[in-house]
Amino acid sequence: MSAVPLRLGLAGLGTVGIGVVKIIQREADLIATRAGRPVTITAVSARDRTKNRDADLSGFAWETDPVALARRDDVDVFVEVIGGHDGAAKDATEAAIAAGKDVVTANKALLALHGQALAEAAEAQGRALRFEAAVAGGIPVIKALTEGLAANRIKRVMGVMNGTCNYILTRMQSAGLPYETVFEEARQLGYLEADPNLDVGGIDAGHKLALLSAIAFGTRVSFDAVELEGIGNVSIDDIRLAEDMGYRIKLLGVAQMTGRGLEQRMTPCLVPSASPLGQLQGGTNMVVLEGDSVGQIVLRGPGAGMGPTASAVMADVIDIARGLRLPTFGIAASTLVAPVAATSATPAPYYLRMALLDKPGALAKIATCLGDAGISIDQMRQLHRPGDRAENALVLIVTHKAAPADIAHALSQFAPSGVLVGAPVAIRIEEV
Amino acid sequence: MSAVPLRLGLAGLGTVGIGVVKIIQREADLIATRAGRPVTITAVSARDRTKNRDADLSGFAWETDPVALARRDDVDVFVEVIGGHDGAAKDATEAAIAAGKDVVTANKALLALHGQALAEAAEAQGRALRFEAAVAGGIPVIKALTEGLAANRIKRVMGVMNGTCNYILTRMQSAGLPYETVFEEARQLGYLEADPNLDVGGIDAGHKLALLSAIAFGTRVSFDAVELEGIGNVSIDDIRLAEDMGYRIKLLGVAQMTGRGLEQRMTPCLVPSASPLGQLQGGTNMVVLEGDSVGQIVLRGPGAGMGPTASAVMADVIDIARGLRLPTFGIAASTLVAPVAATSATPAPYYLRMALLDKPGALAKIATCLGDAGISIDQMRQLHRPGDRAENALVLIVTHKAAPADIAHALSQFAPSGVLVGAPVAIRIEEV
Repeated sequence: MSAVPLRLGLAGLGTVGIGVVKIIQREADLIATRAGRPVTITAVSARDRTKNRDADLSGFAWETDPVALARRDDVDVFVEVIGGHDGAAKDATEAAIAAGKDVVTANKALLALHGQALAEAAEAQGRALRFEAAVAGGIPVIKALTEGLAANRIKRVMGVMNGTCNYILTRMQSAGLPYETVFEEARQLGYLEADPNLDVGGIDAGHKLALLSAIAFGTRVSFDAVELEGIGNVSIDDIRLAEDMGYRIKLLGVAQMTGRGLEQRMTPCLVPSASPLGQLQGGTNMVVLEGDSVGQIVLRGPGAGMGPTASAVMADVIDIARGLRLPTFGIAASTLVAPVAATSATPAPYYLRMALLDKPGALAKIATCLGDAGISIDQMRQLHRPGDRAENALVLIVTHKAAPADIAHALSQFAPSGVLVGAPVAIRIEEV
Repeated sequence: MSAVPLRLGLAGLGTVGIGVVKIIQREADLIATRAGRPVTITAVSARDRTKNRDADLSGFAWETDPVALARRDDVDVFVEVIGGHDGAAKDATEAAIAAGKDVVTANKALLALHGQALAEAAEAQGRALRFEAAVAGGIPVIKALTEGLAANRIKRVMGVMNGTCNYILTRMQSAGLPYETVFEEARQLGYLEADPNLDVGGIDAGHKLALLSAIAFGTRVSFDAVELEGIGNVSIDDIRLAEDMGYRIKLLGVAQMTGRGLEQRMTPCLVPSASPLGQLQGGTNMVVLEGDSVGQIVLRGPGAGMGPTASAVMADVIDIARGLRLPTFGIAASTLVAPVAATSATPAPYYLRMALLDKPGALAKIATCLGDAGISIDQMRQLHRPGDRAENALVLIVTHKAAPADIAHALSQFAPSGVLVGAPVAIRIEEV
C-alpha cells in the first residue's frame, strides 16, 4: 500500500456531501485497504459556514468559493456535490479540470447539458471526470454499462430513475389516492426538489437517461432530444384500470438505437405488473441493460439518499485512487458521434381509455378510426362503474403494436366521429 | 487509440470458448474502440482438433497442450475456459502466471479451491487474475462488489447462483411435478453438469458463494467452510405448502460476517414470494449485495449460456486492455485473512412440516418441545388433505426467529414424544 493519500476537495455540504464526510471518517481503514492508499478530505466548501451539519468538519480547510477550492494545490480530486447545471457547480468543475484535477460529481444536470465539453477538457488533461452518483443513486450502473458490459452492442437501456415519481405512482396505486393528494404528501415528506418539475416533469430522470444513452451508444449526450412527459397527467383511474388488466404505470426511460436513429423517451408507460419493473415499489430505482451477448441485466437499488449517493461518489474516488481512469463516457469524448434523433418511436401496443356516448354504433365508429389508421385491437372492454353517467360508456382498448404517429392520427379522428365524451387517454405499453 | 493489439490465448473451445471467439469476430471494431486497442486471438487449445465447432478457427495457431499455449510469446492474456479444479486448467493457469501472463478464467472450481495461491502468484508477477464469468454468468457482480461497492462495509451477500437448481425448483412449483421427474427433464435438456451433484448438490453454487465471500469480507476463500445442502430433498409438498403461506423455496447462498465468525451457507431456504428472490424464475441468477452505506443492491441476469458467459470473460479482457489490474479479490491476496468459520448460523424463522397422529394432545406435545427449546410459534396450521390417512394430521408451523441449534434440538425431541408420523421437515426462512 502507498502511504501517499489521495486528497479530496469537497464542494457542497448538503446531504450528499455530509454523506461523503461520514463514510470517509467511519471507514478510513477499510477504504485505505481497498483503495491501496489513504483517502482524505483536505478542504471543503459551502455557502454558509455557520450551519449545523451534524458532522465534524474541524479538520478541513474551508473555502467559501468552490472555484478557489478547485484550484488548491493540496487537492487531487475535486468532488462536486453542489448541484445545478450552471453557476458555482459549473464554474468550479471547469476550474478543477483546468487546474489538472480529477473530478467526481453527482450532478446529472451539469453533465446532461455540458458533459461533452467537460469530458473533452478532462480527457485533454489526462484526468478523470466520473459521475456514478449522478445516475440511479447507489446502483453502480455506470460501471456496469461502461465496463461490465463493454463487450456488448447495447440494444436498449430502460429504467425507473426518479424515486420521487415512483413513490408517487406506487402510493397512488396502493392507497387509491389522486395525483394531487400524493404530490402534496411527497412535498411535505421532503421528497421533492425545490423545483418539483425537475422530478414530476421527468427532467431529472431525463438527464439520467441521456447520460446512460451516451455510454450505451457512443453518442454525444443529447438531452434536448429526449422525449419528455412527466407524471402530472397520470390519473388514478388509469392506474386502477391498468392494474385490472395486469399492468402498472411507471415513469419509464427508454433509450434504443433504431434504424430511424436514436430513440430516447422518458414518459409514463404501462409495464406488466409481474415484471421486475412492474414490481418496483416506492423510491427504489431500477435500470435494465440489454446487450447482444449478455441478454438482459437488471439492477435494482436505492436511487437517492445520503448513504447510497455517497457510496457511489466514493466508488469513483476509489477507482481514481486505484489508478483507474476511463473516459467519462467509456470512449474518448472526442470520438462520440452526434446522434440522429429518431423521428418517431418504435411501435408498441397502446392502452387507450375513453368515454363514449352509450348509443348504437359508437364503438363501431371508434373501431373504424383505429382500423383506418392501420391499428388492430388486441383487447377491448366496455365498463359501467358506479357514479358514471348512465348515458356514457367507459371503453378500454389495448391495441396490437402500432406506430405512435398512427395512434395520434387515430385519436385525432375520434372527436370528429361525434361519439366521444371528453378527451381520450393513450399510454404506451413498453415490452420489458 | 493504440494500434498494439492485446493478444489472447484461448484454452478451451466448449460453449464459452466458442462464445468468446464469436464475440471477438463479430464485434472487433466495437471492442477496439472501447478497449482503446484491438483485441485478437493468437492461438487456441482444445483436446480434439477435428470436432466441428461452428466457428471459423482457421486464423488461430493451435496448441494441443494448454500449458504450451499459456507459455507462447505471442500471448498476452491466457483465457482459461477449460473447467475443472485440477488437471489441465490448473496446470495451464499456473504456467501462464509463471510466464508473466494476465489470466482470465470462468473457472469457479479452480478459484474456489486454489484461488489463494493463484492470486498470490499473479500479484507477485504484477499480473491480473480475473474471474467475472465464474460467478453468476453475465451479471457483472464481481465488478459491482469489488469496485462499485468498494466504500461499503459489506453486511451480507445473498444469491441464487445455480440456474439449473432454480429451473428445477420453479418447474416443480409451476408444473406440480416431483423432484425426480424434473431432474430427469433437466438432464434430457442438457441443463446438468456431467456430474449432476455439482449442480443439485449445491457445490457449483457453493464455489461461487465462497468467491463472493472472499471479496466481501477480505477473507481467504474458504469453500470447505460453506454449509452445503443440495435440493435433492426438497419435496413438491413443501413447495406447495410454502407457496400457500406466501413463500417460495430457493437454493439460496448467504454469506455474512457475524460476531460468531464468517457464516457461509448454500442451502434450500424459504423466501417471500413477493420478494425479488422469490420472483426469480427459471435459469436466471440473482445476487443481492448489502452494504452499510448503499443499503441493498439487487443484480439479476442470465447465469449461464454462451453469450452471457463470454460477455463476462470479455469484460475482464477489456479491463486488462484498458490497463485496469485490480487484485483478484479486491485487496492484495497476501493481506486476505483466514476467516473464522461461524460455529452456528444466524437465528431465523423456520418452516416446520410434520405429520402427527390425530389424537388429543398431539399438537400440545409438539408445542411443548418447541417451547422447551425456547422457540416460539408465529403461525400454525393443521391441515387434512384428500388422500391423507384420516388418522394423521398435517401440521405446518412457522416459528419466530430461532437458533438453528435450538431447532435441531426441538426436532430431536419430537420423536420421543410419540406423536410424530415419519420425519419432520425444517427449512430456514431467510429474511431478504
